[in-house]
Amino acid sequence: MNRYERLACELRSRIEEGYYQAGERLPSVRDLVEAHRVSISTVQHAYQLLESGGLIEARPRSGHFVRPRRERPPPPSIGRAMQRPVEVSQWDQVREGTCLLPNSKTFYLGRGMPDIDAPTLRPLLRALSRHARRQSLVTLNYDSLQGQRSLREQIARLALGAESHLHPDDLVITTGCHEAISIAMRAVGEPGAIIAVDSPSFYGSLQAIRSYGMKVMEIPTDPSRGISLDALELALEQWPIRAIQVTPSCNNPLGYGMPLEHRRALYALAQRFDVMIIEDDVYGDLEYAFPRQPTIKSLDTDGRVLLCGSFSKALAPGLRIGWIAPGRHFERAMHMKYVGTGSTATHAQLALADFIEEGHYDPHLRRMRAQYLRNRDAMLDAVAAHFPASTYATRPQGGFLLWLECAPELDSIALNQRLTEQKVRIAPGPMFSAVGKHRNCLRINYATFDPQVEAAVARVGAEVARMLEEAGQAPLAQLAEDAGAAEAAR
Amino acid sequence: MNRYERLACELRSRIEEGYYQAGERLPSVRDLVEAHRVSISTVQHAYQLLESGGLIEARPRSGHFVRPRRERPPPPSIGRAMQRPVEVSQWDQVREGTCLLPNSKTFYLGRGMPDIDAPTLRPLLRALSRHARRQSLVTLNYDSLQGQRSLREQIARLALGAESHLHPDDLVITTGCHEAISIAMRAVGEPGAIIAVDSPSFYGSLQAIRSYGMKVMEIPTDPSRGISLDALELALEQWPIRAIQVTPSCNNPLGYGMPLEHRRALYALAQRFDVMIIEDDVYGDLEYAFPRQPTIKSLDTDGRVLLCGSFSKALAPGLRIGWIAPGRHFERAMHMKYVGTGSTATHAQLALADFIEEGHYDPHLRRMRAQYLRNRDAMLDAVAAHFPASTYATRPQGGFLLWLECAPELDSIALNQRLTEQKVRIAPGPMFSAVGKHRNCLRINYATFDPQVEAAVARVGAEVARMLEEAGQAPLAQLAEDAGAAEAAR
Repeated sequence: MNRYERLACELRSRIEEGYYQAGERLPSVRDLVEAHRVSISTVQHAYQLLESGGLIEARPRSGHFVRPRRERPPPPSIGRAMQRPVEVSQWDQVREGTCLLPNSKTFYLGRGMPDIDAPTLRPLLRALSRHARRQSLVTLNYDSLQGQRSLREQIARLALGAESHLHPDDLVITTGCHEAISIAMRAVGEPGAIIAVDSPSFYGSLQAIRSYGMKVMEIPTDPSRGISLDALELALEQWPIRAIQVTPSCNNPLGYGMPLEHRRALYALAQRFDVMIIEDDVYGDLEYAFPRQPTIKSLDTDGRVLLCGSFSKALAPGLRIGWIAPGRHFERAMHMKYVGTGSTATHAQLALADFIEEGHYDPHLRRMRAQYLRNRDAMLDAVAAHFPASTYATRPQGGFLLWLECAPELDSIALNQRLTEQKVRIAPGPMFSAVGKHRNCLRINYATFDPQVEAAVARVGAEVARMLEEAGQAPLAQLAEDAGAAEAAR
Repeated sequence: MNRYERLACELRSRIEEGYYQAGERLPSVRDLVEAHRVSISTVQHAYQLLESGGLIEARPRSGHFVRPRRERPPPPSIGRAMQRPVEVSQWDQVREGTCLLPNSKTFYLGRGMPDIDAPTLRPLLRALSRHARRQSLVTLNYDSLQGQRSLREQIARLALGAESHLHPDDLVITTGCHEAISIAMRAVGEPGAIIAVDSPSFYGSLQAIRSYGMKVMEIPTDPSRGISLDALELALEQWPIRAIQVTPSCNNPLGYGMPLEHRRALYALAQRFDVMIIEDDVYGDLEYAFPRQPTIKSLDTDGRVLLCGSFSKALAPGLRIGWIAPGRHFERAMHMKYVGTGSTATHAQLALADFIEEGHYDPHLRRMRAQYLRNRDAMLDAVAAHFPASTYATRPQGGFLLWLECAPELDSIALNQRLTEQKVRIAPGPMFSAVGKHRNCLRINYATFDPQVEAAVARVGAEVARMLEEAGQAPLAQLAEDAGAAEAAR
């Protein structure tokens, strides 16, 4: 954070704490130069930042004034239905987002990265170090295909928190949730098979469907409840769908938690049409409410749910430790696991099993849930402050990802390109669709939230405003003025 | 090792050192009881073990005598040709061999496990511990899809030893060689594509072909030179083969090193028929001769070779770190890597890069090559001593795997079942074929060789002899007598 960002941050805090009230005049540039011992241009830049964020306004010859507080952006509504199963065509955006070497000067606001800086993670690093120091041969040896029993026992125990009664032998350890999803897809279908997905949907699952030559049927999804059961039923009646892939808890990217009765109805529908359910629970333990909601797997009486999870979001993605409870497709899943990676790295499994057994997992989760909830609200405020009033935002019930829907004229891929020069990257909406839908949407990450993150959000919001202005939308200033009216007109 | 095995081992050493010469009488049971302070039955069991191994013989009322030294078993000859591409039907044996939880009381003589007990591996454990202690965020973070640059640089440097000129950007880090092979298969072909393989062939590759719905064309293979080029050419003329998958260095399971001119001719053939080559080099650095032979990749002028490697055999399989140099299929390989596992575990990559950069890799290799060569000869002697004279054995030029071809009546799957009770497991031949060929063959591992291993080999050899006897072959004693004659008759 440079000087003017630090100063802007300080002023923003004062405004948010009510020290400066709406309509009140802020200190003059000269006063701030003297009080903070900074240059005139630093103060001017700080005021510009706050102004572009819509928090203050400059009145000619009068100085800077606090603007009335903006409402948080309203949630988006459900998308339109798709007509038929399609092949997944998007890859370039995903490749760009996941394959580029991280550049320390660029702010990756779009990534699915948790905060890995918490002190509650230290016992995990200690366990990793301890297992290496022990010079145990087990660390270096092939693991069995199914994975370390001690870790599977811990995962089965944790699953009880989501009311899933799993036996350690029901589980296969995988190289992250990616491999779990990949195994699940191949266990349920062959090339040409149709998978129904919520939309927007995690791009990793879509890419798995693409790579196995399957087709995808995108089902409209309610941003606060999940996949539309009516639309799904219609699709199940019309097409020979093999499986339904959903992320009911802390949905990525929409953040909703699917209500329990909705889960029950989804499972009943799957039974009626005899299709499988691939349940991505990778963010599940990060639900803000405690205890967390039961998984769909917990309702499973006939083994049709393949539950996929991992420690990548709740702990640390670099470990690459996930799991799958493949239900009735256990044998096929074992074959896919064998073919894909042979076995999972032993060292990280042992360290993780220790970390959980020693009781470090729950305190870490408690800390992260509280942090992510706090950050969610801060991020919603930041979006309210820095984005055009035409923006909609989700209300995540867990995890650390926010989905923004901008005015229809916005092209989020073009936005990302323009942001490159400003050293910020977002995740553009079309990544989350098989056919480039959600072009006016984007995903941002609030795992950490500090003035640097807010400055990055401000840059994105300003760029969105500029692009909409260029596209013939009302200019930023006017939009900000009309925020209340726009709200009412929706 | 129990008492009688220990005593047998001691006596065997004395015979091998020439202390007791061929035809000489060994000490009486009573003498040994007194000298070693053991029970009569211990001595009797020790003598029975040596007898079943063909090293000594009991003469009624005269005592035990050293038998003439047996010749090492001759190498097997080339197999018969296959008529057409087939689907891979074997999985049960592979599943059993790789999925069962290791049982510490059972001797896994068939596994592809290196010796991970060498002191030269300790710096690797120290590097793992150091990176965890550093509490570096990098350890816990997602890696980029392509893998750590520092490790790719080291791999590119090591590849020069096999005359491969690779740039770090040509490489993608994978979760073991398993993932590399899996990526390679899917990069070159879609369901229904035909892959030509050497035969016998690594079961992991066959299972990958199976799981992707491809077909396999098994090409007869010379146990000392590799895949038959004549047979391969015929197959290429007759079938639309997509790629040739071979393991030219330290072949698994045959152990040969494909001569350089053979590699050149294979590459020329691939060019002529415009097919890809998937080169499995996972054992390549363990060639006994130094410098090792150039890879086929080193001859590659048009990017048609997909080179797959890993540290699983040269260092430690539990790390699950491999790589692929996918040549012209780089982009497809990146997509398959993304879909399969997203990225590779960061911690082990960092530790490995340090280990190699600090100069620990070459000394470890030197040590292991010498050990494996020593063990190869000891294992050949043990097979000569304990297996029926009708047995053929390969002459591995690297690695730590021996391939035995028994009399045609032997069923190695039934053998493995009978060995379960005796707490030994071998890798039965049909695992290495798409359609259950090589039924009278088995693979055993000599990464470590000590009296316990020899006792396990003795149990396998005795069981083979028993089974052949039951199948109507000449009894064990007679076989041993006729060893010389049988040899001449081959």
